[in-house]
Amino acid sequence: MTLDSYLKKQTEKINRALEGCLPPARERPAKLHEAMREAVLSGGKRVRPILTLAACEAAGGKEEAALPAACAIELIHNYSLVHDDLPAMDDDDTRRGRAACHVKFGEETAILAGDALLTLAFNVLCRGDSSSRPNAGRILRTIHLISEAIGTRGMVGGQAVDLEFQKKEMDLPTAEYINTRKSGALIAVSARVGALVAGAAKKEEEALYRYGKFLGLLFQIVDDILDCQGYAKVIGVSESKKEALLLSQRAKKEIKIFGKKGTTLNQLADFVLNRKA
Amino acid sequence: MTLDSYLKKQTEKINRALEGCLPPARERPAKLHEAMREAVLSGGKRVRPILTLAACEAAGGKEEAALPAACAIELIHNYSLVHDDLPAMDDDDTRRGRAACHVKFGEETAILAGDALLTLAFNVLCRGDSSSRPNAGRILRTIHLISEAIGTRGMVGGQAVDLEFQKKEMDLPTAEYINTRKSGALIAVSARVGALVAGAAKKEEEALYRYGKFLGLLFQIVDDILDCQGYAKVIGVSESKKEALLLSQRAKKEIKIFGKKGTTLNQLADFVLNRKA
Repeated sequence: MTLDSYLKKQTEKINRALEGCLPPARERPAKLHEAMREAVLSGGKRVRPILTLAACEAAGGKEEAALPAACAIELIHNYSLVHDDLPAMDDDDTRRGRAACHVKFGEETAILAGDALLTLAFNVLCRGDSSSRPNAGRILRTIHLISEAIGTRGMVGGQAVDLEFQKKEMDLPTAEYINTRKSGALIAVSARVGALVAGAAKKEEEALYRYGKFLGLLFQIVDDILDCQGYAKVIGVSESKKEALLLSQRAKKEIKIFGKKGTTLNQLADFVLNRKA
Repeated sequence: MTLDSYLKKQTEKINRALEGCLPPARERPAKLHEAMREAVLSGGKRVRPILTLAACEAAGGKEEAALPAACAIELIHNYSLVHDDLPAMDDDDTRRGRAACHVKFGEETAILAGDALLTLAFNVLCRGDSSSRPNAGRILRTIHLISEAIGTRGMVGGQAVDLEFQKKEMDLPTAEYINTRKSGALIAVSARVGALVAGAAKKEEEALYRYGKFLGLLFQIVDDILDCQGYAKVIGVSESKKEALLLSQRAKKEIKIFGKKGTTLNQLADFVLNRKA
């Protein structure tokens, strides 16, 4: 299978699962449910959940075991977009070519929709049918790792410092702080969690975590190169491109231990390196 | 011990535990951490966590086993206050006699502080030292129940419908919808979770859940009577007072099965009925 058709297949699988997680739009409070559904189901590359599924497979697990965690991570990613777009935050009116949540549904609904998506993510993490479900201890560790990755020492911390420096000159340590946290932390944990729910050995889990960290940094640097922002602004585009290539190589090196089973993860690293949008 | 000194002792215990959960103000991102700390540590009656500890004790558990869940519930309560006070929501400038979070720290920090407190709550739920910690299955069920109680079918749903009806005439089914959800759902689950982490039998857990539901309704009705809002506006103050008395009696009836161990829960029902602020 080519990477393109693999990504298409996985995206459809994840979209079906997300559709099943979200509350129906006709149920009260209807507007809030509609806002949540539109925020999650109106597109998106699904990089993070695809990564979780791929990491689970590389570690010898079944995809179904990773599906609740993959959905939870995508719900979290979408909550962060809804809140980041708010007027008091990045003040973006559009998202994925459509009106942002707060523009279409109002600011109060966007705040609540983000809150509800984050809450739903933790709800979904507790689910899974008993046949494919990892044991309770592993699920608990998954919840713990995800909550670390998206708290003030992770994603939310990155966003806070990013907002703080939007009107200030950014120094390299700050750019690195934001890079490892704002989107990096959730991407890194996406890979690690795939290993965890697969029941992987510690060594494999740690290799996938390092792979995820490099991939997260890579993702952010490519973002910065495409937007000419953050890191690329501080060290320049040409240096950033060198750094990106290096990160993709380091990511790939980490998954050598999976041999042929790591092929998809290898291709995903190239995909992130070469993406144009 | 009188109820007053019991409440004082429990409040201090919970405040110490919350202090230990929150990230230090000097750590980056400092402003965000400061906002979180001030939102949580600047007062509050701690009704919910006190209820969790009391329910745990009534069900024969050790307080330490319930402390992480009690803290998580109080963090969630405070996240909801920070977001509810935002200009786009209830637009309140003061909270507990001080400047609201968004007034003191700015709207963007208040949004992120709420997000971070909610995230921290789930993080704290995974903690607890191994000696007092309930087994992983029980913790997972606790996380699941809490996430149900504060999602769109619970607290966030109640807030969404409340906002929707602030400019409309409220009918009785809507008042009841809001009453059971906006603050009721979190209070109800506070009691249930105490039983759960105590390792209580199903029958006891269910009795405490019903007790918590009556207490949650009671809490909201007393709120409405004090503010002359919501339910009290629809059915009148005098009818509301009758309803409140009835609810406190029904709550107390549920905990008869605990005999003398239910004394504190009994006193808490009277406390909620008779509170003046």
